[in-house]
Amino acid sequence: MSKAPISRFPTPEIADLPEDIRARILAVQEKSGFVPNVFLVLARRPDEFRAFFAYHDALMDKPGNLTKAEREMIVVATSNANQCQYCVVAHGAILRIRAKDPLIADQVAVNYRKADIMDRQKAMLDFAMKVAFEAYAVDDADLEALSAQGFSEDDAWDIAAIAAFFGMSNRLANVANMRPNDEFYMMGRT
Amino acid sequence: MSKAPISRFPTPEIADLPEDIRARILAVQEKSGFVPNVFLVLARRPDEFRAFFAYHDALMDKPGNLTKAEREMIVVATSNANQCQYCVVAHGAILRIRAKDPLIADQVAVNYRKADIMDRQKAMLDFAMKVAFEAYAVDDADLEALSAQGFSEDDAWDIAAIAAFFGMSNRLANVANMRPNDEFYMMGRT
Amino acid sequence: MSKAPISRFPTPEIADLPEDIRARILAVQEKSGFVPNVFLVLARRPDEFRAFFAYHDALMDKPGNLTKAEREMIVVATSNANQCQYCVVAHGAILRIRAKDPLIADQVAVNYRKADIMDRQKAMLDFAMKVAFEAYAVDDADLEALSAQGFSEDDAWDIAAIAAFFGMSNRLANVANMRPNDEFYMMGRT
Amino acid sequence: MSKAPISRFPTPEIADLPEDIRARILAVQEKSGFVPNVFLVLARRPDEFRAFFAYHDALMDKPGNLTKAEREMIVVATSNANQCQYCVVAHGAILRIRAKDPLIADQVAVNYRKADIMDRQKAMLDFAMKVAFEAYAVDDADLEALSAQGFSEDDAWDIAAIAAFFGMSNRLANVANMRPNDEFYMMGRT
Amino acid sequence: MSKAPISRFPTPEIADLPEDIRARILAVQEKSGFVPNVFLVLARRPDEFRAFFAYHDALMDKPGNLTKAEREMIVVATSNANQCQYCVVAHGAILRIRAKDPLIADQVAVNYRKADIMDRQKAMLDFAMKVAFEAYAVDDADLEALSAQGFSEDDAWDIAAIAAFFGMSNRLANVANMRPNDEFYMMGRT
Amino acid sequence: MSKAPISRFPTPEIADLPEDIRARILAVQEKSGFVPNVFLVLARRPDEFRAFFAYHDALMDKPGNLTKAEREMIVVATSNANQCQYCVVAHGAILRIRAKDPLIADQVAVNYRKADIMDRQKAMLDFAMKVAFEAYAVDDADLEALSAQGFSEDDAWDIAAIAAFFGMSNRLANVANMRPNDEFYMMGRT
Repeated sequence: MSKAPISRFPTPEIADLPEDIRARILAVQEKSGFVPNVFLVLARRPDEFRAFFAYHDALMDKPGNLTKAEREMIVVATSNANQCQYCVVAHGAILRIRAKDPLIADQVAVNYRKADIMDRQKAMLDFAMKVAFEAYAVDDADLEALSAQGFSEDDAWDIAAIAAFFGMSNRLANVANMRPNDEFYMMGRT
Repeated sequence: MSKAPISRFPTPEIADLPEDIRARILAVQEKSGFVPNVFLVLARRPDEFRAFFAYHDALMDKPGNLTKAEREMIVVATSNANQCQYCVVAHGAILRIRAKDPLIADQVAVNYRKADIMDRQKAMLDFAMKVAFEAYAVDDADLEALSAQGFSEDDAWDIAAIAAFFGMSNRLANVANMRPNDEFYMMGRT
Repeated sequence: MSKAPISRFPTPEIADLPEDIRARILAVQEKSGFVPNVFLVLARRPDEFRAFFAYHDALMDKPGNLTKAEREMIVVATSNANQCQYCVVAHGAILRIRAKDPLIADQVAVNYRKADIMDRQKAMLDFAMKVAFEAYAVDDADLEALSAQGFSEDDAWDIAAIAAFFGMSNRLANVANMRPNDEFYMMGRT
Repeated sequence: MSKAPISRFPTPEIADLPEDIRARILAVQEKSGFVPNVFLVLARRPDEFRAFFAYHDALMDKPGNLTKAEREMIVVATSNANQCQYCVVAHGAILRIRAKDPLIADQVAVNYRKADIMDRQKAMLDFAMKVAFEAYAVDDADLEALSAQGFSEDDAWDIAAIAAFFGMSNRLANVANMRPNDEFYMMGRT
Repeated sequence: MSKAPISRFPTPEIADLPEDIRARILAVQEKSGFVPNVFLVLARRPDEFRAFFAYHDALMDKPGNLTKAEREMIVVATSNANQCQYCVVAHGAILRIRAKDPLIADQVAVNYRKADIMDRQKAMLDFAMKVAFEAYAVDDADLEALSAQGFSEDDAWDIAAIAAFFGMSNRLANVANMRPNDEFYMMGRT
Repeated sequence: MSKAPISRFPTPEIADLPEDIRARILAVQEKSGFVPNVFLVLARRPDEFRAFFAYHDALMDKPGNLTKAEREMIVVATSNANQCQYCVVAHGAILRIRAKDPLIADQVAVNYRKADIMDRQKAMLDFAMKVAFEAYAVDDADLEALSAQGFSEDDAWDIAAIAAFFGMSNRLANVANMRPNDEFYMMGRT
């Protein structure tokens, strides 16, 4: 079986990209040893690329009470529910690294209710899943359930925003048939 | 019945906002005569605000084959399916204005299959709804159905990206209990 | 875009209708200034027309604790969930008039949980939605939740009957492609 | 296990009912040997009772291409999908009698796709189920599928109206906890 | 209407079957007066036949706190939800016999929440339905709800295992178009 | 975070098990280097254990046109859809080994439509998913779609039976909170 291309849509050559985008991609490549396909697939649309990663960084890299591993848990749990192969494989890798736990990503992806995570993290993921699938019904009781686990109002916003942003990302990746890089599968497993 | 606040979360004073954000808000107020609540609700998070509107503009204001009215149809149809009050009311107003048609927004919101729109627009909305609810199953046949209606590969990306971006926006607005400004309800109706 | 016809099925001429039906239609026209399309579409079947409007009047015009605006809220909320364009547009107009509130219909249609209505009205609509989508699971706890908001057993019947009757109406209108009259869109907005 | 009452709501004494309703009930009792509980449960609301049975008779007793057994198939298939115990048990009995077939009702209730019925009857029930659960998406292709099986436009209306009317009835019966009379279970089985 | 065959797949002759399978089938025939079709349909695969009935007997015939009628209630309720005609008709017959109640099977099949059964049996069926449709979300609260009705941990396993095993059986029967024997329909009704 | 136990229910000591069950478990341990938890969790019920593994072996180890890797694809795809952590992790490992492909299991688990597998394997999984979620609607067209990809009637049975059997297994594992052994996560990845 030959491998599928990295996207249903044509992807640009790195050399042809605007300078800022090329610079970001080369920096990632320098750090990771490879270019995650999401950068190449989205680079087809420079303005969307810039906005996407600015949003991503604002949610995933900013200070806040949620640990970086917890943010990745949200990505992994909602992305599997949305059946996004790229997002589960790539962010599963990041979650394993952030949590320094080789098992956690597969557990959270398939059924976070049975994962080796804390009760507060399960409450966080319950809320993230409600945002992903029934945001219209989010109400005060949901916020109170988070508060009971020590999450602030700002944390609630963060959880919701991460679930919502990656819900967008999941849809884009699925429409584009975005292929996860082979490198992700083994990252953080040993 | 007293009116609900514009958000479940505190919103900043315009005077306290970073300069670029205040400038954007004042420009919108100048043009529209009021500040749409989404600007105030998101301004609580300046970096997210900047990324959100950069993304929004990249999708909604850029050149392309989809008319501006068609882009708003996508927003209205998917936002009602996601039960987002702010998005249906605000973008319904914009759709009426863009399409110069006082009836179209309510038709598209409730059931676009019965709206006074073209068959190609119904195909566009069929695809948008599949992206919104079953993106994991999007396949070549969906792209071919769009192509049969004259949509290019770039148009398919645009439709998908708009449905996905506003899917994020719908979730944020629902979690925040974002209230549509009273001004939107009558815009474009007469 | 030319307008769609008022129904997928042929509609009779008013002059050809049985006397009682013609009289009712002319009375509505006299009062409203136009003939709502539902009268013409259903007149194709005189016996069904008579039963439909007798049932309608028995539920919507009779005395009872539910205000007329509240009854229309039930129609609007369930009709949007059933994606019935005719019913949302026509009864949205009636709701605005009954409630003397130009904003309420759009709010209730898209997401009643976020509308400017009372908690008891939200409880009423929670029950109506359960009747519309999970009537098989209605149990004592639902009746008790209504009772806690001051609704009697007779009110529960009324809410359920209105949700059920308009569920039928929604299905008929969708199958017939029943088109809302242009007049409804602006009624009660100013 | 003692038997449940025939309704969650109080039911009137036959002697206390308006003359026309009492007459109809006594006529049914005369013909059937018992009073089906739906008559007693709905008699609590005389105007609704009259409209309900007028509608019922207009759909189920009128001339038309659909046989009476076929109309009952629609009732039984959609009522089981709506989980209405009264409707499946009572109309299952009527279907067995109309079709002179002791097996057909249980087959149609559980899975009409596997029942000993004609392909055209399966197409009729496919349409009825779409009306019951996705009426918003009914389109020309559905009407053409019926036409290919010999159903006229009037037949399509009849199928839809029966599915819609009993969808209302299913919801009312479920909310009322309407109990099927013991007599129905054995009718038409031998 | 001629009857459908007992399976979409060819079924073997009893005489051609392995001795142990033929013996079991003849014993059933001796006891029941006919060979339930499930034996003939599964006999096409002798090893699967042996495992299927060993599993069946381990769950349905073993000692335990659940009565035999209660086990059949689980089969009937979940099989109707899975729309398995064979299973509802055949196990409905067995339930009537086990419970010595001619009405119970039809009640439990259509809507067990309204059946003439005990509250603890409704709790048992609530759990069985959760296993059938949302097993991923089963948690301590579900076990506690069972415990509150007097069910032990072993009873919880039994309920879950019966719901799961017949979920498999329902799928096999539906794929095979397995036809219930005519004899089942009247068993236990008089 | 300490690890969860291997089951919600107590598990027996190997030394206390019936001889045939102990022998099977020791043979697996000898071959694999560890005892997969499913053996210990099910050993609590010896008769169910025997039937379960006899059924498993009849489906997974028997000759047939489906390769062993293809059978595991069915298990992995349907188990992720059923959110069964044990089954996805354990059978993902077996799939990687059978297919000699370190990437395939994660791809098939999250979204088989985008996996590096053959079109006939996607058709096989489409059918398996229909069996898992809509078996009631399986019809001749599904069998023909399989036939068009070269699958025989016996292959169709095999696919259906594997999807149905592991649907049972998924439910049991979820109710028991069955924990995947740590060893599975890395098997077949290098």
